Amino acid sequence: MSTQSLAQIRIILVEPAGPLNVGSVARVMKNMGLEQLILVNPQCDPKSEDCRRMAVHGIDVLENAQQVQDLPAALQGCQRAIATTSRSRSANTPLETPRAALRWLLTPNLTTALIFGPEDRGLSNDELKYAQRFVCIRANPDYPSLNLAQAVAVCAYELYQVALEADTDSETLEIAPASLDVLEGYYQHLEATLLKIGYLYPHTAAARLEKFRRLYNRSGLADEEVALLRGILGQIDWLWQLLEQPQSLE
Amino acid sequence: MSTQSLAQIRIILVEPAGPLNVGSVARVMKNMGLEQLILVNPQCDPKSEDCRRMAVHGIDVLENAQQVQDLPAALQGCQRAIATTSRSRSANTPLETPRAALRWLLTPNLTTALIFGPEDRGLSNDELKYAQRFVCIRANPDYPSLNLAQAVAVCAYELYQVALEADTDSETLEIAPASLDVLEGYYQHLEATLLKIGYLYPHTAAARLEKFRRLYNRSGLADEEVALLRGILGQIDWLWQLLEQPQSLE
Repeated sequence: MSTQSLAQIRIILVEPAGPLNVGSVARVMKNMGLEQLILVNPQCDPKSEDCRRMAVHGIDVLENAQQVQDLPAALQGCQRAIATTSRSRSANTPLETPRAALRWLLTPNLTTALIFGPEDRGLSNDELKYAQRFVCIRANPDYPSLNLAQAVAVCAYELYQVALEADTDSETLEIAPASLDVLEGYYQHLEATLLKIGYLYPHTAAARLEKFRRLYNRSGLADEEVALLRGILGQIDWLWQLLEQPQSLE
Repeated sequence: MSTQSLAQIRIILVEPAGPLNVGSVARVMKNMGLEQLILVNPQCDPKSEDCRRMAVHGIDVLENAQQVQDLPAALQGCQRAIATTSRSRSANTPLETPRAALRWLLTPNLTTALIFGPEDRGLSNDELKYAQRFVCIRANPDYPSLNLAQAVAVCAYELYQVALEADTDSETLEIAPASLDVLEGYYQHLEATLLKIGYLYPHTAAARLEKFRRLYNRSGLADEEVALLRGILGQIDWLWQLLEQPQSLE
């Protein structure tokens, strides 16, 4: 499984009516590595200005979109199909989340499809019967109906994340933390300087220092950052020296 | 954590220019249980017909949207902020996925924010500095730039899934983080003091300060800790005053 498998998935829009939606769908498909858009009996013109404007750099997905008369034609040659819906057909066809179900479309070397219904009514029971599994985007019960292009965006996003998983996990750039003795050197310098300038008192210094330790330990200081912080202490030490020997200012 | 915590999250759009986008954002916010929309210096009219038409039943989110002049005003009183971006600022501020990072905004009883930049340019470095963590929606390297409303949809969806998931597990907050304006006050005090004592130079101050911001933002400072750190600055300020008026020592 990889991002290349995304190309095997057909995104099928049944009777879409909004040119802005169709254009936005093309854009987000391109964003998420999807290439095959199929429009079933579209109720708007996919060549219209509104449509093209929303597609932006997904314009090639839009221009390559196929138009067909009915859902069976769109599914011709497909081996797996998932339909999106907001309602369960029966107890035997439970609704699944996109996260749980969509990876099923990414099994290598299959031709697969994800089907979306018209903006105003969603997929009919007759249309739903062509799918093998059913996905519902869980949302606010007070207003669960997503805009068509938003629903496609969520599913396309989920597909892309699954496809990426395969490549490799952990890409987070961790900063290399300073070694503990470097940190300890900083804490001791901090204590010495703060005692000297009268910010800390000997009898409360330990408790105060604890708070600073906790604060800095949470952040996981890098070597370079310890150097920055010690730079400030160095500057304070220098100021203090000037104060102790006021004649040197003259 | 629960879907109720969604109401504590501010969705902040910086200088949005597309009325269709703003309307779509309001709709998908409503779909995903989000209530607080803040528009920073919007470049379109949120009362326009285009905007209202796209909001559909999210019209109340749109009508209750606040307009403010700049990002600090939008963040007033916030304790945690995540910015969305397509690029890493530096090795010390790794980009995280929405799935990994956004749950951080749902810790109960915090005021939090998720920030989105303008359609054409995204958030500037200057705007990014107000956030503590950075989220990037991983997408097709050939065309990674999502439409604004689609990006909000993906993040709102992730937030809702986390909120649903989590009626069970509840993160207990070890320390209550300081609000962002308290932090900002500290950073400004730090800059002023370090400039004064000659640790920072005017032409390099901004870059240096960036490093300090990152370091402290990672640690998630509490109010009490900010007070400790400002106490040190106060002591340095006092030393400096003594130096400037050496006669007062005599």
